[in-house]
Amino acid sequence: MKIVVDAMGGDHAPRVVVEGVALALQHGLDPATLILVGRSEALTPLLEEFKLERRLEVLHAAQVIEMHESPAAAIRSKTSASIVVGMKAVKEGKASGFVSAGNTGAVVSAAQLILGRLPTVSRPGIAVPVPTREGPCTVIDVGANIYCKPIHMLQYAIMASEYAKGNFGRVDPAVGLLNIGAEEGKGNPLILEAHELLQASRTNYKGFIEGQDIMSGAVDVVVCEGFVGNVILKVAEGLATFVAEQVHAAFAAQPPNPAVKSALAVAFSQLDYAEYGGAPLLGVTAPVLIGHGRSSAHAIMNMIKTATNVIRYDVTRRITDQLASGSGAAPA
Amino acid sequence: MKIVVDAMGGDHAPRVVVEGVALALQHGLDPATLILVGRSEALTPLLEEFKLERRLEVLHAAQVIEMHESPAAAIRSKTSASIVVGMKAVKEGKASGFVSAGNTGAVVSAAQLILGRLPTVSRPGIAVPVPTREGPCTVIDVGANIYCKPIHMLQYAIMASEYAKGNFGRVDPAVGLLNIGAEEGKGNPLILEAHELLQASRTNYKGFIEGQDIMSGAVDVVVCEGFVGNVILKVAEGLATFVAEQVHAAFAAQPPNPAVKSALAVAFSQLDYAEYGGAPLLGVTAPVLIGHGRSSAHAIMNMIKTATNVIRYDVTRRITDQLASGSGAAPA
Repeated sequence: MKIVVDAMGGDHAPRVVVEGVALALQHGLDPATLILVGRSEALTPLLEEFKLERRLEVLHAAQVIEMHESPAAAIRSKTSASIVVGMKAVKEGKASGFVSAGNTGAVVSAAQLILGRLPTVSRPGIAVPVPTREGPCTVIDVGANIYCKPIHMLQYAIMASEYAKGNFGRVDPAVGLLNIGAEEGKGNPLILEAHELLQASRTNYKGFIEGQDIMSGAVDVVVCEGFVGNVILKVAEGLATFVAEQVHAAFAAQPPNPAVKSALAVAFSQLDYAEYGGAPLLGVTAPVLIGHGRSSAHAIMNMIKTATNVIRYDVTRRITDQLASGSGAAPA
Repeated sequence: MKIVVDAMGGDHAPRVVVEGVALALQHGLDPATLILVGRSEALTPLLEEFKLERRLEVLHAAQVIEMHESPAAAIRSKTSASIVVGMKAVKEGKASGFVSAGNTGAVVSAAQLILGRLPTVSRPGIAVPVPTREGPCTVIDVGANIYCKPIHMLQYAIMASEYAKGNFGRVDPAVGLLNIGAEEGKGNPLILEAHELLQASRTNYKGFIEGQDIMSGAVDVVVCEGFVGNVILKVAEGLATFVAEQVHAAFAAQPPNPAVKSALAVAFSQLDYAEYGGAPLLGVTAPVLIGHGRSSAHAIMNMIKTATNVIRYDVTRRITDQLASGSGAAPA
């Protein structure tokens, strides 16, 4: 097994990426499983600093797609970008998966263009693990596709179920369809049609779920359309930051207390995206893990771990089989 | 000025509603401004208990629409329900506004059916105040209308701007359109068309806003379609509850500390919907304030205060004038 890691992806790349790789190796990962892709002149001194020179394969990529570049244009014009070069290495069979905390749109575009969609998949979706009282729940799609049709939602449910099995060890994952009410008949036409497809599917479909119930852990997979998923993810991020600020501000007026500090650290660690190992793009021909632009070294390490899980469990083949066996999949 | 208060609306009605009214009177509200609508046999003993008998006008309504009844059917079949009777009192000019923590769908349906839409308004919208670092921001629509068109979004911006002026004292409120990116060209067709209408309008339109930026207080009004608004509101509610639980659990292992308790109370009070005075349904012919089903007495008091602000500032007339003056409103 080999995984390509985009050394240039993320706000703090390449330093935190190399640091994350070093962490993963300290935690027992075999260096032979990794290929770092990026500007070798930037990577060489860092690899020396982290004592990784000669332990890691580096694939040179002369260009970098910046976080705010327009994805489609960047993919076309920067053919030597780390995202493009790394994705091609996967396509050519030099590695089984790709990990990047870089420009999300560029990773999604490159994956579709270079790796390609699975033959039965209409639209790949980004699946994000969110914390709940019962462990991580997988929310799909959070923005790969903003022109969502009911059949896409059925495929999201099937794909994310395989991911929840492989990465979170869920047995027969329960699936919910995000809606504005739990009663039969609620929702817009997209939701109502997707509901019918899901009811007829072999997924473990539990019906509608409302936003306030996601964190109770009632289901293992939440299906929603990409615009909605993207917005709720960002609102949740803004809210979590706001609450953390309010709590810290309230304690700032008090004398420093190590017990308080450690209790708050425990409480907020549950909300730390860095713990959850990135977001897989499901529906392309190889595992692709996308990280938050702000990814820390710890987050990078967890993304590499997730990629390892997804490859070991062979999530891509299982998705292909599930869709091909017509496991509830309606004609596309 | 008179305000009809739905005594039967909410999970803890009628007791907390009467308690909320008593609180409002303690805070200086003139009892002559209130009409309580509900089952008189349930209200009489409560009014005695709170020493409000003979101080408050009661309008008898024999029926109650329960929280989970189908709104449209309930409005038709329960013509003596507190929501119906109360709304009719407003329509007949006996009062200027209506306040309810009852079935949201039923309040919205009754308002549209009995009070009617303002002549220039295609779809009323529910506006919800959310906490930010710069005070409350008004998010509209959170679910009155799930078949949203660009023109509705323009009207939401105009209506919520008047509300933000009248209730939150904002001067020339800044308006943002909720989107999945801040760059020009991002978004689905609904967003892109609404963006054009808003750019051409006389609202203080600042362009796209992403979910994580709402709580920074960058804008005073956030426009979104009802499905999205409803979902993010509920996700935010679930997340806030989850974080509060995590924080309290983390401190539960420590010896009780009054300073910690008070710091947490301060921090989480910012997130308490009860502080924000309910959500106005904008676009109908009289002020209608909708409260959370779980509303406390404190929340009821704040809803009555908001209704008073909205009536005093004459938000309904100002909305009518803004829309009629063609203040950027495109032809409907």
